[in-house]
Amino acid sequence: MTKATDGYLSNLSVQNIEAIKDPKKISLEPLPASKKVFLQSASYADVRVPMREISLTDGSHITVYDCSGPYTDATAEINIHQGLADVRSKWIEAREDTESYQGREIKAQDNGMDDATKAFKFYNPELQRRPRRAKKGKNVSQMHYARQGIITPEMEYIAIRENQSREALSNEFTTDERNQRLAGNAMGANLQPITAEFVRLEVAEGRAIIPANINHTELEPMIIGRNFLVKVNANIGNSALESSIEEEVEKMVWSIRWGGDTVMDLSTGKNIHSTRDYIVRNSPVPIGTVPIYQALEKVNGVAEDLTWEIFRDTLIEQAEQGVDYFTIHSGVRLAYVPMTANRVTGIVSRGGSIMAKWCIAHHQENFLYTHFEDICEIMKAYDVSFSLGDGLRPGSLADANDEAQFAELETLGELTKIAWKHDVQTMGEGPGHVPMHLVKANMDKQLECCDEAPFYTLGPLTTDIAPGYDHITSGIGAAMIGWFGCAMLCYVTPKEHLGLPDRDDVKTGIITYKIAAHAADVAKGHPGARYRDDMLSKARFEFRWEDQFNLGLDPDTAREYHDATLPKDSAKVAHFCSMCGPKFCSMKISQEVREYAEKGMQEKSKEFKEQGSELYVAAD
Amino acid sequence: MTKATDGYLSNLSVQNIEAIKDPKKISLEPLPASKKVFLQSASYADVRVPMREISLTDGSHITVYDCSGPYTDATAEINIHQGLADVRSKWIEAREDTESYQGREIKAQDNGMDDATKAFKFYNPELQRRPRRAKKGKNVSQMHYARQGIITPEMEYIAIRENQSREALSNEFTTDERNQRLAGNAMGANLQPITAEFVRLEVAEGRAIIPANINHTELEPMIIGRNFLVKVNANIGNSALESSIEEEVEKMVWSIRWGGDTVMDLSTGKNIHSTRDYIVRNSPVPIGTVPIYQALEKVNGVAEDLTWEIFRDTLIEQAEQGVDYFTIHSGVRLAYVPMTANRVTGIVSRGGSIMAKWCIAHHQENFLYTHFEDICEIMKAYDVSFSLGDGLRPGSLADANDEAQFAELETLGELTKIAWKHDVQTMGEGPGHVPMHLVKANMDKQLECCDEAPFYTLGPLTTDIAPGYDHITSGIGAAMIGWFGCAMLCYVTPKEHLGLPDRDDVKTGIITYKIAAHAADVAKGHPGARYRDDMLSKARFEFRWEDQFNLGLDPDTAREYHDATLPKDSAKVAHFCSMCGPKFCSMKISQEVREYAEKGMQEKSKEFKEQGSELYVAAD
Repeated sequence: MTKATDGYLSNLSVQNIEAIKDPKKISLEPLPASKKVFLQSASYADVRVPMREISLTDGSHITVYDCSGPYTDATAEINIHQGLADVRSKWIEAREDTESYQGREIKAQDNGMDDATKAFKFYNPELQRRPRRAKKGKNVSQMHYARQGIITPEMEYIAIRENQSREALSNEFTTDERNQRLAGNAMGANLQPITAEFVRLEVAEGRAIIPANINHTELEPMIIGRNFLVKVNANIGNSALESSIEEEVEKMVWSIRWGGDTVMDLSTGKNIHSTRDYIVRNSPVPIGTVPIYQALEKVNGVAEDLTWEIFRDTLIEQAEQGVDYFTIHSGVRLAYVPMTANRVTGIVSRGGSIMAKWCIAHHQENFLYTHFEDICEIMKAYDVSFSLGDGLRPGSLADANDEAQFAELETLGELTKIAWKHDVQTMGEGPGHVPMHLVKANMDKQLECCDEAPFYTLGPLTTDIAPGYDHITSGIGAAMIGWFGCAMLCYVTPKEHLGLPDRDDVKTGIITYKIAAHAADVAKGHPGARYRDDMLSKARFEFRWEDQFNLGLDPDTAREYHDATLPKDSAKVAHFCSMCGPKFCSMKISQEVREYAEKGMQEKSKEFKEQGSELYVAAD
Repeated sequence: MTKATDGYLSNLSVQNIEAIKDPKKISLEPLPASKKVFLQSASYADVRVPMREISLTDGSHITVYDCSGPYTDATAEINIHQGLADVRSKWIEAREDTESYQGREIKAQDNGMDDATKAFKFYNPELQRRPRRAKKGKNVSQMHYARQGIITPEMEYIAIRENQSREALSNEFTTDERNQRLAGNAMGANLQPITAEFVRLEVAEGRAIIPANINHTELEPMIIGRNFLVKVNANIGNSALESSIEEEVEKMVWSIRWGGDTVMDLSTGKNIHSTRDYIVRNSPVPIGTVPIYQALEKVNGVAEDLTWEIFRDTLIEQAEQGVDYFTIHSGVRLAYVPMTANRVTGIVSRGGSIMAKWCIAHHQENFLYTHFEDICEIMKAYDVSFSLGDGLRPGSLADANDEAQFAELETLGELTKIAWKHDVQTMGEGPGHVPMHLVKANMDKQLECCDEAPFYTLGPLTTDIAPGYDHITSGIGAAMIGWFGCAMLCYVTPKEHLGLPDRDDVKTGIITYKIAAHAADVAKGHPGARYRDDMLSKARFEFRWEDQFNLGLDPDTAREYHDATLPKDSAKVAHFCSMCGPKFCSMKISQEVREYAEKGMQEKSKEFKEQGSELYVAAD
């Protein structure tokens, strides 16, 4: 075993460092008509919550939830080779329950190589932080604090963030009649204005998690739970065939720019430790991983050679780096594996298939199950949250809601209770591929089995017949399950089943899932969720094209589509669009109807007849 | 008024004709690995139903519903300047209840111009057919025949078509357990194997329509009703700013190539009569229009100048051309117009706003309402179906399910019953913009108000915050309302609210809506619907990449996405993809699990240990 520092000092050439220093590759500019603003906590001087303020052409502005971090702050200095500014260290240190210590030695194998002369090519000493862990006998999870009645700065931060300045909203169209007519169907969720105490209670009772490793001090805290805004996760990661370390950082930046609330680094193969350094140190959002991927690399891909010791070492490696949640496939029990034999698509989870193979090779119970409490000990020492993996999720409609899937889900419920016994924050993962009529059964069963622990689902895809469009087949299922109570939606890109997503695919996946999440928030009746819809609709009705673009989830694409047929600036204030052309616009007519209703029917009718007003107006 | 033939003879130059004769612009090739096959009716010698047969690499094939017409038939001769081959004339003539007659004179104004020297630029005499109409006292609607107990060749055609050769399906994975577990939730629909008698009964009772103008003899009959497959409509049409007549024909061909079941020609402005000649004569699918658009052109855009006489003349003009269904906004009653005054987005339907303006200008009841029975007389003379327009549909979430929308819906129910009194086939149009939790209320109210007449909805969009992605915001709502009972989904393209869709947008819109329609069929439990999902999933699991592409809704895009990272032909049979890379594949592991389950746990466990098998396989 070679030390990382050895590897770095002897092998990392200046040329290699320069090759990855290309700031042009990182997306830094604010979104159109937007700037970063900070909401100051009244209780905590150092709790300042970043939001995105969108300026409208009428001089007003609206503030929206913003997970894009300092990258969209025009005043922030960004250097991905040094990492983001610290947010949480003072909060963590003030709790006085952690200790800084000499971390685990970084090995060549951590980067998937035996050869130390190559293994540290991307290892950057400037990104190394001395790790912290719980002092002996302490538990540093947000759940532990919550259960002791402690409101942490993280909880305060989240309360401000989730409220989106709703109290300041003055939606002229939000009348009592409208609110009553559109009142959501919460599907059992408990929706209300968010206070820090409410955040604490939800975390204490396990209905929400705050993924926030004490070693991820750059984190802007966020929460995952069905009584909060529905969240979206984006997966990134290299693979044996594609991508570079810096492209991975940009993928993260790009994902959060468009609304990714968390990012999972699913890298496999070489340089994954160093890639993770880059991603965590530069991420303002929680980072999730599947540690078994890296553990498998360490045994050269031979699943049978995996051991608890190797896995444990990997957990500590990643916990020290600051990973916020781990997908762990403890629910793939030996007895469930044969239940997948007659499936149309067997086991489609990578982690699930690794553990299934281990189980059948040894004919032993999954060591992630037998060592579950040992894992809990690690989780609570760093406040890493569980994302209990659904290794037996269906890979096709034909396998949806089957015996194997639901047997595993029941085990996830059992494990959730064990994790809670340790005050370890826990969510559970879900499908997959599920026809629409069976989506709700998934949500209901998860709530029941897992005692309302947050559900985190991939899609589900509602049909299998559209490769190339699985962001859409799954966006349908995601919107529905989000409404039914799913707390976080894992995005699917158009390349799903076909290849690795590129930059455009990642954006398309994120936007699709932001649509699903927001549609779910609106359907649930999340307070204030419909505000942005109303503002955009009003802008649309008033022909404020710029505002319509800028209030949308993707201003760039909206503008590009509009300009494809009407590129001139004058068209941005024109009272028509190319859909109907300059001479014919129902929006314009509607405004005349309003005048009519206001003036009274008789009078207006007379006036119209006298003036002979025309539907057609002169083109610009 | 100038005769069309006058205009043509004196003004249409050879140059003009040549300019629009570019066969390269029309998409003619079959879809990949597909060929046209015909299912022969046992009862009717001239009922031959075209289907698409997809060949799989294992030598088997599957047959799927095909609305692409002769354009994907390699043996068909296509000349859009002559029109498609006749399908229905013999059936219509055999009924002996119609007469051929000298049709209405074509006027310059029909093409939106006063100047006859310009009005017939695209008028093509080769596309003119001598029209037919019902003999005096006769009613030639399919509903009229159905109510008399007559099964028409159209009904027989549809029965064969809707069954998709299901009886021949041999899905090895369709076990009793799986069928029971995945049994759909029909939401009140009556799903069963389709017989001609069932088609007749559904049409007789108004639950389904067969849009089939007797002057659209090129039509391949199809049915719209919630007890049949969910259908998709694509809108095409020029506007004052965009498009040419031939591009419109290709848009139609392109739309049906990807699965459009009907096409609405929403052209406004100049040359709309001649455009319609081209579209109807070349369309194997029903064509719908909104006749008020053309009527408005004839009064130079002054809504107040519209009269019943001008509208009536336009209906006859279009009925003689062969338009299969008319959107008619008879439900926009004078008293409802002021109900829209306090909406966020007023009236967003073009037809609705025209009629609202007419009503308030004259302070009179909508003439489309007062003359509704006169319209019925025309509809039954040509068998044009009603699509009762939702002129007051919501244009934003804020206006969903409001007083104006539901007042109009109740009137559509009243009008449906009047149409049925005349044996006129009728469907009703629906929203629009509706949050997910209010979608079902729309469907339920429509079923109740309109006595189960087919519902035909635009979307609905489930959020307003994503201009540029409204195919997705609405695809979510479309899938849901399709499941709940909507019979046809009107597509929305990515350019909605922003500009005119181009070729790519049309395709994206159609594929998105085919996903929604199919997801709905699967959720309803439509017999055989899941077959294609299962076949594709099986191909995916067996690494039959070519079959995965070809079984999908868009083989070209699936292949392109796959090839973006693995372009070599050898990768098409490789047991991996670029998502995980060559050394790691859960699908492969699943196959080992199957062997394990088959051989028995103990034996397999021993074997694995002895052989030391690895997860990693050598890269190609």
